[in-house]
Amino acid sequence: MTADAQLHAEQTEFIAGVAGKLNDFLSEQQEIMATISPDVAPLMGSISNLVTGGKRLRALMCYWGWRGAGGDSGDAEIVTAGCALELFQAAALIHDDIIDRSDTRRGGPSVHRRFSQLHEMNGWALDNERFGHAAAILTGDLCLSFSEESFTQIGPRAAAGSQSRRIFNLMRAEVMAGQYLDILEEVAGPVRDRSGAVDRAKSIIRYKSAKYSTEHPLALGGALAGASPELLDGYSAFSLPLGEAFQLRDDVLGVFGDPETTGKPAGDDLREGKRTVLVGFAINQAPAAESAYIDRMLGNQALGEVEVSEIRQIIVECGALDATESLIAELSDKAFSALERLPLAELPLTALRQLAEAAVSRAA
Amino acid sequence: MTADAQLHAEQTEFIAGVAGKLNDFLSEQQEIMATISPDVAPLMGSISNLVTGGKRLRALMCYWGWRGAGGDSGDAEIVTAGCALELFQAAALIHDDIIDRSDTRRGGPSVHRRFSQLHEMNGWALDNERFGHAAAILTGDLCLSFSEESFTQIGPRAAAGSQSRRIFNLMRAEVMAGQYLDILEEVAGPVRDRSGAVDRAKSIIRYKSAKYSTEHPLALGGALAGASPELLDGYSAFSLPLGEAFQLRDDVLGVFGDPETTGKPAGDDLREGKRTVLVGFAINQAPAAESAYIDRMLGNQALGEVEVSEIRQIIVECGALDATESLIAELSDKAFSALERLPLAELPLTALRQLAEAAVSRAA
Repeated sequence: MTADAQLHAEQTEFIAGVAGKLNDFLSEQQEIMATISPDVAPLMGSISNLVTGGKRLRALMCYWGWRGAGGDSGDAEIVTAGCALELFQAAALIHDDIIDRSDTRRGGPSVHRRFSQLHEMNGWALDNERFGHAAAILTGDLCLSFSEESFTQIGPRAAAGSQSRRIFNLMRAEVMAGQYLDILEEVAGPVRDRSGAVDRAKSIIRYKSAKYSTEHPLALGGALAGASPELLDGYSAFSLPLGEAFQLRDDVLGVFGDPETTGKPAGDDLREGKRTVLVGFAINQAPAAESAYIDRMLGNQALGEVEVSEIRQIIVECGALDATESLIAELSDKAFSALERLPLAELPLTALRQLAEAAVSRAA
Repeated sequence: MTADAQLHAEQTEFIAGVAGKLNDFLSEQQEIMATISPDVAPLMGSISNLVTGGKRLRALMCYWGWRGAGGDSGDAEIVTAGCALELFQAAALIHDDIIDRSDTRRGGPSVHRRFSQLHEMNGWALDNERFGHAAAILTGDLCLSFSEESFTQIGPRAAAGSQSRRIFNLMRAEVMAGQYLDILEEVAGPVRDRSGAVDRAKSIIRYKSAKYSTEHPLALGGALAGASPELLDGYSAFSLPLGEAFQLRDDVLGVFGDPETTGKPAGDDLREGKRTVLVGFAINQAPAAESAYIDRMLGNQALGEVEVSEIRQIIVECGALDATESLIAELSDKAFSALERLPLAELPLTALRQLAEAAVSRAA
């Protein structure tokens, strides 16, 4: 088997392991739920549906962090850790979609929309949207609890006081804080110091995305395999700029992405009022009238194709898109050179390189 | 010291221990949060504020469950367990208040209202109510994570696979399922079989309240102290009917309670559309026209004093209030006789008796 085939086979086996473990875990939970009432089935269905898809970026970062630190390829603990990360991600997405009023997720209805539709289909009373939000809050809470339950099942290596438990706790707290900073900037950004917009947006992506999507999962895998503090520092030097570049790419796709590929309506980030680094550059670099136009349009739910394409044009012409692409390139360079300095075996090194390339050059 | 003074002193010491531990725990978390941004302080402030008050019913059930099973009075683990339960309760309240659109909590603004007010005070952009909801979803998620982190700090006795971990997991899943059944009944109740309304309402209070507020906390304390399966069964025979009576009392207060004492506007449960056992009895026992009137008014946010008092009158005249009070009395009797059969020392027995009396006869 070539090195590349070996990598592919190992990664496929891990992903299949995580999928199988998620399935077993959720089946067990479903048995408990069934004893309560058949009516709660849609909560479980929503969670199962959500953990079935996705790029499994976090689980894979965790896996290669583990392998890089000498963890064994056939280990059940790392599969359980991947399962916990995927459940946490599902919980975060459920609540995120409520917060961002996103009605679609991976091309299908988001969880709160699924519950609104259930309400409509059954001809239930009162407000279907409100019911959808309430049900999705509870589904997210349930999924958050499942994530934790799954993480604890790792056993002694994830026990109280362990390094991996500390990382998992910090990851949760930081992503929630980061998401708060994100929604705060949407409302406070317009009245705050404009020249600080890019720095604030950078801080937001660090906490809500980079630490959560790449840095902590990689460190978690490393810590579970007993990585040295030096190796964990090296992991961070690679994964933090990588995660930042990953989120900047996401921000670009949120404005310029093809809805067919991203599974989300074009310009959704603008309608939502997201004050990303891309938008921060535009607001600072565009002529006053155009900058004010963006400020006025951000967060306007009624934004149509015409306005979205006007804003796109401003972003391109003022050089904000270029500035963002330069930043992505700079952060990617930083990540890739840190990666090459890591004392890793060929297999995990190649795997992380491939993951990193996919993360920063993706189109969806 | 008399037995009563001893009980009081011990309980006071435990409550102070939980408060101190909560304070230490949240201070540590605040230090982490402060490294992210000073902007996230309101999330921590909301959580601190919420865990400062309250009846500490769950922590106390846990404590006496522990003492009844032979646990030591000066133990740090049970204080940590109480802390985890209080944090879980705070998280549940934060999300509950969003779901139920409750703008007040213990006489002050609920968490989503606090964030809406912060938005207004600062003259931020876009919608203050939406910001409040989003921020409160995140604050609840953070608090849910804290609860778990705190629970894990108990150590080996709460490790993966332990009886106490199983109880904690089940408690979380059941309360979320029960809350879903509650909001489902609000919307599906009007189109479902009317004769099943009381039974459905009974199932809801079992899961969303009785198991969560009394049965599981008591069992958790017992399990941490190594209680036998027989003792845990005996605990359930006492605590499940107690919790049901507790919630029925809550339902009565939700319609008939004095706002000065409950800290909530009169008739809020009706405005919210809660289909409680009390309402189920009324819908089945009232004359057709009055039953239809209640059906029509439930969930109407604009319900005024006049309508609330009309509904109250219907509930009283058709015998629904009496039926509910009889059920409370019946469940209380069941709980108290099960309590007297428990093989407990005098101190925990008296403590549980006092807690139970307070739970079913309270006015707030």
